[in-house]
Amino acid sequence: MTWISPFAPDKYEDLPDIDGVRLATAAAGIKYRDRTDLLYVAFDKGAAVGGVFTQSACASAPVEWCRTHLPGGRARALVVNSGNANAFTGMKGKLATQATANAAGEAAGCLPEEVFLASTGVIGEPLDPELFAAHLNTLENDAAGGRFLDAARAIMTTDSFPKISGSKAVLNGKPVSLSAIAKGSGMIAPDMATMLAFVFTDAPVGPAVAQTALDKAVSRSFNCVTVDSDTSTSDTLMLFATGAAAGQSVDNPDDPALSEFYTAVETVCRDLARQIASDGEGLSKFIEVCARGAVSDESARAIALSIANSPLVKTAFAGEDANWGRVVMAVGKAGEPADRDRLSIWFGDHRVAQNGERDPTYSEQDVSNYMKNAELNLTVDIGLGTGQANIWTCDLTHDYISINADYRS
Amino acid sequence: MTWISPFAPDKYEDLPDIDGVRLATAAAGIKYRDRTDLLYVAFDKGAAVGGVFTQSACASAPVEWCRTHLPGGRARALVVNSGNANAFTGMKGKLATQATANAAGEAAGCLPEEVFLASTGVIGEPLDPELFAAHLNTLENDAAGGRFLDAARAIMTTDSFPKISGSKAVLNGKPVSLSAIAKGSGMIAPDMATMLAFVFTDAPVGPAVAQTALDKAVSRSFNCVTVDSDTSTSDTLMLFATGAAAGQSVDNPDDPALSEFYTAVETVCRDLARQIASDGEGLSKFIEVCARGAVSDESARAIALSIANSPLVKTAFAGEDANWGRVVMAVGKAGEPADRDRLSIWFGDHRVAQNGERDPTYSEQDVSNYMKNAELNLTVDIGLGTGQANIWTCDLTHDYISINADYRS
Repeated sequence: MTWISPFAPDKYEDLPDIDGVRLATAAAGIKYRDRTDLLYVAFDKGAAVGGVFTQSACASAPVEWCRTHLPGGRARALVVNSGNANAFTGMKGKLATQATANAAGEAAGCLPEEVFLASTGVIGEPLDPELFAAHLNTLENDAAGGRFLDAARAIMTTDSFPKISGSKAVLNGKPVSLSAIAKGSGMIAPDMATMLAFVFTDAPVGPAVAQTALDKAVSRSFNCVTVDSDTSTSDTLMLFATGAAAGQSVDNPDDPALSEFYTAVETVCRDLARQIASDGEGLSKFIEVCARGAVSDESARAIALSIANSPLVKTAFAGEDANWGRVVMAVGKAGEPADRDRLSIWFGDHRVAQNGERDPTYSEQDVSNYMKNAELNLTVDIGLGTGQANIWTCDLTHDYISINADYRS
Repeated sequence: MTWISPFAPDKYEDLPDIDGVRLATAAAGIKYRDRTDLLYVAFDKGAAVGGVFTQSACASAPVEWCRTHLPGGRARALVVNSGNANAFTGMKGKLATQATANAAGEAAGCLPEEVFLASTGVIGEPLDPELFAAHLNTLENDAAGGRFLDAARAIMTTDSFPKISGSKAVLNGKPVSLSAIAKGSGMIAPDMATMLAFVFTDAPVGPAVAQTALDKAVSRSFNCVTVDSDTSTSDTLMLFATGAAAGQSVDNPDDPALSEFYTAVETVCRDLARQIASDGEGLSKFIEVCARGAVSDESARAIALSIANSPLVKTAFAGEDANWGRVVMAVGKAGEPADRDRLSIWFGDHRVAQNGERDPTYSEQDVSNYMKNAELNLTVDIGLGTGQANIWTCDLTHDYISINADYRS
């Protein structure tokens, strides 16, 4: 089936070209027909690299490859494919990553360990590295600046639209640019979502800064998204900093000059994370769940996730039903401190419950009208403390079932 | 919509009459029309009582009532309604339970604290106790033995069939009987399911034995069920033992004579729990997930629940797709010790993966044929230890969405 998110943009912003980054895509026929499924990115003068990966105990072969080589801190190339995750493929999967890194290293003129890899798609099918090798020399020859939108398209799986985001910052008085791409639609939950995201920047920063920028950004971006509570074997977020912008390289992650750069990284990560939630498989509503008044931020996060992952809450949103009884249920099952008689609940600005019972003043009609919006806010105040967390999610619809009962992902 | 589980029985067994138990039902019009929604049970000579209740931090008023009075260990009446859960109803809810217990106590000629209460249905709507009071004297006059099937019908909400189970045991050389009823279909997950279940027996046992029998039974019955991972505010399991059977009363829960009785309680609880999973909202498949080879039973349980609650695993079953890649994902996200390269997976007797990769010998056609069955088994062997757990669940279908996007429960 072809499902298109109601949040799919009509047009896409022009992202800044990142000096030192060349991209190319190809249709390698890994699984899909008539579309690109292979992305090659060259960093001709190298890039400082940071990365954050899935917490899954069954991580994919490319994730293991990246983890192994991340401590080197330096990237010369990135190869990403869609259609096959190269996950749960045992020794064959490991050999496939090595073969791909070897071939990309030859094409780029670098060591295999300077090549980073990501794969997304079917789990458990052997991935034939020959499909890549046949294209890598051509991709290297064709690679050019810009093309982030093409790159975002090549890494899509069940995504209904490509996801890109750009930002700018000033670092030690000099302008730096960021362009980023992501994919993700189902199998989305912290930590992390089933998603791939790559941030490219010309900022002159070292690998420790690249890593710190992502570590700071994820907790307020990708780890705030849940579509279906399912966490993938392949989640990968990487930042590549070419240092091509003017200025002295900043290597100490605690340098106060980095503040605006860190904010810019978080901005693109948040933007991409929201786009992922707004492309949640089959969604009709984008929902921001805010839990506040919990005993701690961690407790608020657990409560917000309990709500955001509840099938009954998600189906109520799909039905445009302000069913706060199900919200009470989800708070109650979170396993976190909560006191029924202090709990308050809002849909948007409409308080529907307070102090453990229905708010006698709320207008069912007003709330029903509010629920017709495509973007919705749900707030719960636990009334016990100051802990707060926000989670982005979406509703659970017939289209989610159609997409996932038919597609072998 | 009217959805009927494919597992709905064509006919129902005759449950044993339990001496000392009289039942009656009425149509009180609490929410539903043209059906019974009120159950009254009298224990004329009293019954020893045990109970297990929801772990929700937002438990309903009737749950709080029962918790408060359970230590008395003695019941004279039970009043259950469907259509309104009397949950998150604040002080009004508390007053409603007191008023109902008062009215039932007057009708039965007992103290209010000898009346036990349960409610299931909409959360957050005030429940008018007058709707009950108007019927209680009539119910008391009409109440008679048997009628367990009628009783099971009166407590249904989204259930598509009434759930009953009976068993017999020998206690100190004398026969005892058990008849039990339950309801539950959605908002079902440990601990406990959204469910009400009541076991009635003539066994001569004290309250400590009644409690122990349930404590032993739940971990292998109701706490093995998940439909949608959502835990209700109202879950209630109670056992009432009238002692009307012959024989000396057994009050010490460690008395070895109780072994067969405990088994009989577990048998009816398991039977009812399986019936609840097989009436999971909208299901087309009943699924038993077995996790073994985990580092502990608790770890196995967490892994089995991660699989059983995964929307992507559940939709794959709905699509009759032996998508073991999603099973790998669900094992990986469980947060429990697992080693990808030791993991094996079976659908029924068909091993599809072993040692971290696809089993090269499995026949896709054979597995696809197996997936067409209505009852399915999924086994994962973690390969790290001897911990084991079984969980009953169902698939996630379009009908689940239809039921829950439209019904305010």
